[in-house]
Amino acid sequence: MKAAIVTIGDELLIGQVIDTNSVFIGQQLEAIGCSIVEKVAISDSEDAILEVMKRFQNQMDLVVITGGLGPTKDDLTKKTFARYFNDSLELNHEVLEHVKKLVERIYQRPISEVNIQQAYLPSKCKVLFNDVGTAPGMLFKKEETTYVSLPGVPFEMKYLVTNGLLPYIKNNFHLNAIVHTTVLTVGIGESLLSETIALWENSLSSIGIRLFYLPQPGLVRLRLSAIGTDKVQLTKQVHDKIEELKQLIPENYIGISAADSLMEEVSNLLKLNQLTISTAESCTGGSIAKELTSLEGSSVYFKGSAVTYATESKVELLGVQPKTIEQYSVVSEEVAREMAIGAKELFQTDLAVATTGNAGPLKGDSDKKVGTVCIAIATNNEVLSFTFDFGQPRSKVIDATVSKVWFLLYKQLSFKERV
Amino acid sequence: MKAAIVTIGDELLIGQVIDTNSVFIGQQLEAIGCSIVEKVAISDSEDAILEVMKRFQNQMDLVVITGGLGPTKDDLTKKTFARYFNDSLELNHEVLEHVKKLVERIYQRPISEVNIQQAYLPSKCKVLFNDVGTAPGMLFKKEETTYVSLPGVPFEMKYLVTNGLLPYIKNNFHLNAIVHTTVLTVGIGESLLSETIALWENSLSSIGIRLFYLPQPGLVRLRLSAIGTDKVQLTKQVHDKIEELKQLIPENYIGISAADSLMEEVSNLLKLNQLTISTAESCTGGSIAKELTSLEGSSVYFKGSAVTYATESKVELLGVQPKTIEQYSVVSEEVAREMAIGAKELFQTDLAVATTGNAGPLKGDSDKKVGTVCIAIATNNEVLSFTFDFGQPRSKVIDATVSKVWFLLYKQLSFKERV
Repeated sequence: MKAAIVTIGDELLIGQVIDTNSVFIGQQLEAIGCSIVEKVAISDSEDAILEVMKRFQNQMDLVVITGGLGPTKDDLTKKTFARYFNDSLELNHEVLEHVKKLVERIYQRPISEVNIQQAYLPSKCKVLFNDVGTAPGMLFKKEETTYVSLPGVPFEMKYLVTNGLLPYIKNNFHLNAIVHTTVLTVGIGESLLSETIALWENSLSSIGIRLFYLPQPGLVRLRLSAIGTDKVQLTKQVHDKIEELKQLIPENYIGISAADSLMEEVSNLLKLNQLTISTAESCTGGSIAKELTSLEGSSVYFKGSAVTYATESKVELLGVQPKTIEQYSVVSEEVAREMAIGAKELFQTDLAVATTGNAGPLKGDSDKKVGTVCIAIATNNEVLSFTFDFGQPRSKVIDATVSKVWFLLYKQLSFKERV
Repeated sequence: MKAAIVTIGDELLIGQVIDTNSVFIGQQLEAIGCSIVEKVAISDSEDAILEVMKRFQNQMDLVVITGGLGPTKDDLTKKTFARYFNDSLELNHEVLEHVKKLVERIYQRPISEVNIQQAYLPSKCKVLFNDVGTAPGMLFKKEETTYVSLPGVPFEMKYLVTNGLLPYIKNNFHLNAIVHTTVLTVGIGESLLSETIALWENSLSSIGIRLFYLPQPGLVRLRLSAIGTDKVQLTKQVHDKIEELKQLIPENYIGISAADSLMEEVSNLLKLNQLTISTAESCTGGSIAKELTSLEGSSVYFKGSAVTYATESKVELLGVQPKTIEQYSVVSEEVAREMAIGAKELFQTDLAVATTGNAGPLKGDSDKKVGTVCIAIATNNEVLSFTFDFGQPRSKVIDATVSKVWFLLYKQLSFKERV
């Protein structure tokens, strides 16, 4: 089953908005065995929409279209749909009733003219009812291709994908079996890894397994994706191949990864081992705490963070000794260690991680090189510390520090004998 | 000048990676007057790349292509370029020397076979030298269309856009004058706003000005974009139209916005007024601190944050009274106010903002409804507090809270008489 994703909106073309809608749609479709062939962003114009619909006609089984934010955008897609399918817009009373209730309940105001317009839909479309917003989804089939239009508001789009589109696909398409497995490797860069496993990698494609390299600082995740008809056989093929890989890189192979990201692995390991964590963040400015709290149920293991951006707050909140700062500078493993110990005390946790660094572009309160970052981890038994040079620019330093923290915590929690 | 952006990589199609490269390229091209007509993500396959190159041939003036991460991806693009332009790969000694130096200096290892491969380039391409990584950029012109290939590593791509591509475009293309102006409006939703200014909006397109709605919680930013030949005339046209808008929505019009986001406005206002800020974050888990510290030079105004996720840390760090929590629950304006006052004291700042809420999906330590969020702002003169219901899901609650904080701070800092 071949699918394309179309996002409409000038704001996407000019980089005013980061497109996360197509990311979600891609993930969901791929997870059930669709093959995403193309993703395209086009202008808010009827011509551009018609052109792309024509281009995909009978080339794709499914075309998922999302409009930009707001009722004016949905309107454009609707009119274009009506034109492409030789249909006309008619008032859909069921949708009108639905929109009316929603506006009165959520926005606590009477229905507006724009809202009424939202209930005018191409007469022949199948409506995907939107229980969380005013813009409905629409579905049309023409010859070999099914077109679906979804609103651009992310949580409305997500609701309609989960509750409207995916059930429809499962009922109306023949889907392939699909097996994804991700393997963690450490201590070998992507270039060298790809050279080392080149022959093995070639052998994958001959049996229809695709390999993706997902490098992160200090580790490379390898994702094997197999698509076919027999799930049991696919699973066996993938596992046989992973056994071969293990022999090829015994020093670097860590294991099969269950989570989508290393941060999720860390979170799973904290829960599994019933450990709590806190953070003391200077150069990362709260990024580590933010990622930890993005997961549901994170309050079980995450207790809090002291974002001590100003040097004096490192002393005040975390009990860092002024003479340590004086002697080693604020960007030093010594200060990072005292920050980690301070956070562990303050939040009464089993683990604490601390960051202090020069994210740049200016030097700040330390004489250390821009890009220098120190990380410390305090556990119930020991305090570990590390220094890195992440170069520039600023955003890269912050991101690299956060990734490195997940890597160090993962090592600490999962294969301590290797540290 | 018409441009298209092509990103290559299965990881983009299946939503494993969020594409920020095309966002940056779109912004940069648009800022100098290119018109981005399409953005497309395709699979890592020679056929898919060739097809898209053919499709854009003589339809676009410029096609910017970025590969996925890693040398294997760059390799594919290079071979496809050679094939499309009837060229062959040859060792470029200048590039080889460059890669060698870089690998030895940054990675502190000898050059690998993969790195040597990176110096094989189509013989007729113009090389864009990459001073920050091993993969060079390539530029080809065929008939009416210029094709540019850039590496997928974000900071390398950014370096080559800024130092290679943009100077080339400025020297080789005739660019339009372009004027962008963003206007802030508050207190009116997007639907109602679009109805109120419908006639005005129609009058814009007749003189070639495009209008974008950028809604955020509590406010809508309107962006006017004019493209033409005479910058002075465009500027005048846009400003005349903004004067008309001011008359149409006198209660809602705030002013012309200088920054890319409301957070940047807040940051600018803090700097302008020489004010410092700290945060006390519960449900936002460090997100506000993270955004504030993402900007260069933020240490001037941002002093720190207490991310008090656990209830007990609100008491320990911020001095929230246990009896306030008992009486009003941890999600209450009373607790938010004490958190803000506590953070203001702790970090010795002029302003402090506090968040406490139930992000969900489970209820947590409070009996308040999932989605309920309280925000407090402590200033040198007063403490303000607010309660909101942001519904679900979790990620929406967190994002909406952060946006609302920027809005409330913006109001507080810029047009206090309206609060």
